[in-house]
Amino acid sequence: MNFKEELKNRANLVEAALERFLPSSDAYPPLIHQAMRYSVMGGGKRLRPALVIAGAETVGGKSADVLPAACAVELIHAYSLIHDDLPAMDDDDYRRGKLTNHKVYGEAVAILAGDALLTLAFKLLTEIESSHPEKVLKVINELAEGAGTFGLIGGQVVDTCSTDESDGEAVLEYIHRHKTGALYRVSVRAGAILAGASKKQLDCLTEYAELLGLAFQIKDDILDVEGDEKKLGKPVGSDIKNEKLTYPALFGLEKSREKARQAAGKAQEALRCFDRKADFLRALVDFVINRDF
Amino acid sequence: MNFKEELKNRANLVEAALERFLPSSDAYPPLIHQAMRYSVMGGGKRLRPALVIAGAETVGGKSADVLPAACAVELIHAYSLIHDDLPAMDDDDYRRGKLTNHKVYGEAVAILAGDALLTLAFKLLTEIESSHPEKVLKVINELAEGAGTFGLIGGQVVDTCSTDESDGEAVLEYIHRHKTGALYRVSVRAGAILAGASKKQLDCLTEYAELLGLAFQIKDDILDVEGDEKKLGKPVGSDIKNEKLTYPALFGLEKSREKARQAAGKAQEALRCFDRKADFLRALVDFVINRDF
Repeated sequence: MNFKEELKNRANLVEAALERFLPSSDAYPPLIHQAMRYSVMGGGKRLRPALVIAGAETVGGKSADVLPAACAVELIHAYSLIHDDLPAMDDDDYRRGKLTNHKVYGEAVAILAGDALLTLAFKLLTEIESSHPEKVLKVINELAEGAGTFGLIGGQVVDTCSTDESDGEAVLEYIHRHKTGALYRVSVRAGAILAGASKKQLDCLTEYAELLGLAFQIKDDILDVEGDEKKLGKPVGSDIKNEKLTYPALFGLEKSREKARQAAGKAQEALRCFDRKADFLRALVDFVINRDF
Repeated sequence: MNFKEELKNRANLVEAALERFLPSSDAYPPLIHQAMRYSVMGGGKRLRPALVIAGAETVGGKSADVLPAACAVELIHAYSLIHDDLPAMDDDDYRRGKLTNHKVYGEAVAILAGDALLTLAFKLLTEIESSHPEKVLKVINELAEGAGTFGLIGGQVVDTCSTDESDGEAVLEYIHRHKTGALYRVSVRAGAILAGASKKQLDCLTEYAELLGLAFQIKDDILDVEGDEKKLGKPVGSDIKNEKLTYPALFGLEKSREKARQAAGKAQEALRCFDRKADFLRALVDFVINRDF
């Protein structure tokens, strides 16, 4: 498998669907729709939507049937980045090599654009064509749970506000498991649920996604120390500047690399119950820990 | 009918349900759950949830069956107030006689608490017990539409960012129709849809809700000029201070009162297709334009 080509194919599918699902730039009031498009259509690896699609394909489903769900998780990811970048939060000026949303549209519009993307995500989910509306409701329920205070937002709160330094490793694990892991887990489960996965298949995919999310996040922390600003599209060293709790800060670079490799290995093991239809997910693990962007 | 008692009964039902649905104050991470509860449980007239319940009751449904939907619209209302009050938006220090969310918890947590309430609203909707999951999906779809950029957020964007002063009345109508009207309309429709309303009943209720929302908003503008700060729980005159487009600013107080009465009269007419089960909605119209808080 040429993984990068496969990933690109899925990204193209998702971007074409996002283009259709997002209100056009001149729909009234245009400013908010421009701000939404600025952040959503501004690149990104589209890993979460690829996970939705792969979750479906791994259990025999089709990408076309889960595109609204794939786009919904990407909108939630985009909203979380816009709000994370705000001056009251991480106060970042650049994201993916471009000015952050509030640097272009101002804080008020950036807050509202984030709100609007989160809201639109749930609207998209209701537009999934399925003969099993109860499965669609289950996906909406899981996405709301994964994006909420016991998932993404919980991770963000602890990341932004934690003053508890007594047990750094536990806090760090909580942050990563929630801030990144929750949406990874929900993404792969959403695709699989819509495609009719069995309980056992869902369990394997869930374990896989949690370990993949962990590997991804450790690698992200490593790249913030030793990555190339041009390739990353954002300044490196911001974690140190902001005194963020990270794997390299806690364990050093070498031990962090080892932990990323361990998580990656376990993620591969979790896929043992699948045949070659899971090959994309297998290649994704290697991509995540070997990437330089 | 003793309207205030009936309204209070519904508010009590809703507050007991909100108490159950909101994560407890000590659930991890506690800060965000405390911030969510601070704004949601801090009073308010609970008009939108009352509309959900009345929408159901008017077409023969039961309040107990629509409580998650009633709470969901209240959570969306609460989230929109928290974000509206932020320094980057209206920069308000008081709401309902209490400090605004960001004055107590800081901007970062206030932004996240708003995000979390919006997210929780959609989760609640998936927990509606219904033998018609497609109706629940329709309600989620309408709520996402009404809360999005063609509804609530659209109104907020124009309210916050409009620089077009060429047609004040049209802009003002857009703001009110979207910022207040959209959620009123969705509230009454959500209750009615879940209770199995006919197309004709839905049409009547939709017209009613739009006119009620308009009357409410004109009255709100009037109270900001001539209301009693103690009763309102917030400073009066903030619209003038912020150079907001309002009915009194455009038409003067007397003409604004007349417009509120006209909208109220039309709202009553829209209820002609209903029997006495719509009496709560009828009394609500009078309450909305005669209130002093």
